[in-house]
Amino acid sequence: MPKVVVLRWGHRLQRDARLTTHVVLTARALGASGLILSDIKDKRIKETVEKVTKNWGGPFFFEMGVSWKKAVKEWKEKGGVVVHLTAYGDNIQTSDILQRIKASEKDILVVIGSQKVPKEFFSRSVSDFNVAIGNQPHSECASLAIFLDRLFEGKELTKSFENAKMRIISQKRDKKLARK
Amino acid sequence: MPKVVVLRWGHRLQRDARLTTHVVLTARALGASGLILSDIKDKRIKETVEKVTKNWGGPFFFEMGVSWKKAVKEWKEKGGVVVHLTAYGDNIQTSDILQRIKASEKDILVVIGSQKVPKEFFSRSVSDFNVAIGNQPHSECASLAIFLDRLFEGKELTKSFENAKMRIISQKRDKKLARK
Repeated sequence: MPKVVVLRWGHRLQRDARLTTHVVLTARALGASGLILSDIKDKRIKETVEKVTKNWGGPFFFEMGVSWKKAVKEWKEKGGVVVHLTAYGDNIQTSDILQRIKASEKDILVVIGSQKVPKEFFSRSVSDFNVAIGNQPHSECASLAIFLDRLFEGKELTKSFENAKMRIISQKRDKKLARK
Repeated sequence: MPKVVVLRWGHRLQRDARLTTHVVLTARALGASGLILSDIKDKRIKETVEKVTKNWGGPFFFEMGVSWKKAVKEWKEKGGVVVHLTAYGDNIQTSDILQRIKASEKDILVVIGSQKVPKEFFSRSVSDFNVAIGNQPHSECASLAIFLDRLFEGKELTKSFENAKMRIISQKRDKKLARK
């Protein structure tokens, strides 16, 4: 399975606090190795992620404040590909883009932004693949989830996390939690 | 294909504004018929949804302020089933829960909450199925997206919307928009 790191661009303090938190937790729960919050620092999100990883396990890294240009450049230098999730890209359902990404057999930096990303994100110098999770406006959190679910073919939902203090016991009714 | 309506519980004014907006747009883009924002009214979200549906097409309904109990009761009286998305439920990847939901051949009310939903949500009087999109904490927006993608088997990503003023022309690079 490829290593996947998510780059979150365009986070705004206060306004995006909960949304970016959901994006980070989605990245962790659905099999990404870590998330880079680019071009900004948000201590509250860092704290939330650290708390979740401490309780529910890892490994999962969270970095913030790195410029997106630097992160993309370094990723490419290490031989990885960049997948930009955008409603304008190749539809994951009707095109062969997912097969082509898998065929590259490379580690993947998934770039997700907000409504108005820099035009450069679409260019060859940044994105190797522009992937649309449908061509309707919706949510980077939803797009990331479906992309990871399809990339990992559902196996991410059975992943076990290391050093977890808490673990849910899946069942038909009620809540069951095992603590270490 | 079954008719799907989403019930969003536990929205808090201001704090959840962007997250709930993303949930509603995800519901619309991924094939749900509408969304009920239960037990609260939020005019700003209503305005956003109406604007998106006006520009990008429908049909998609948005209701708010209905009590969740009433919505669930009416749904069941009409013969529909209730699917509660929760990290505590049957794992969609390792159990047969999705097959059982499909086999019911009934319309589906998808209930999504926040971290602390009423205990009743897990009981037979409310949920016919408690479905976990993995058993890790993450996001109701991500869970809804994967649930709809798996339920509709990806076909939702090719759905065409009626009376759209704008439509994205899917392509490998750049942004292309057709206006009517």
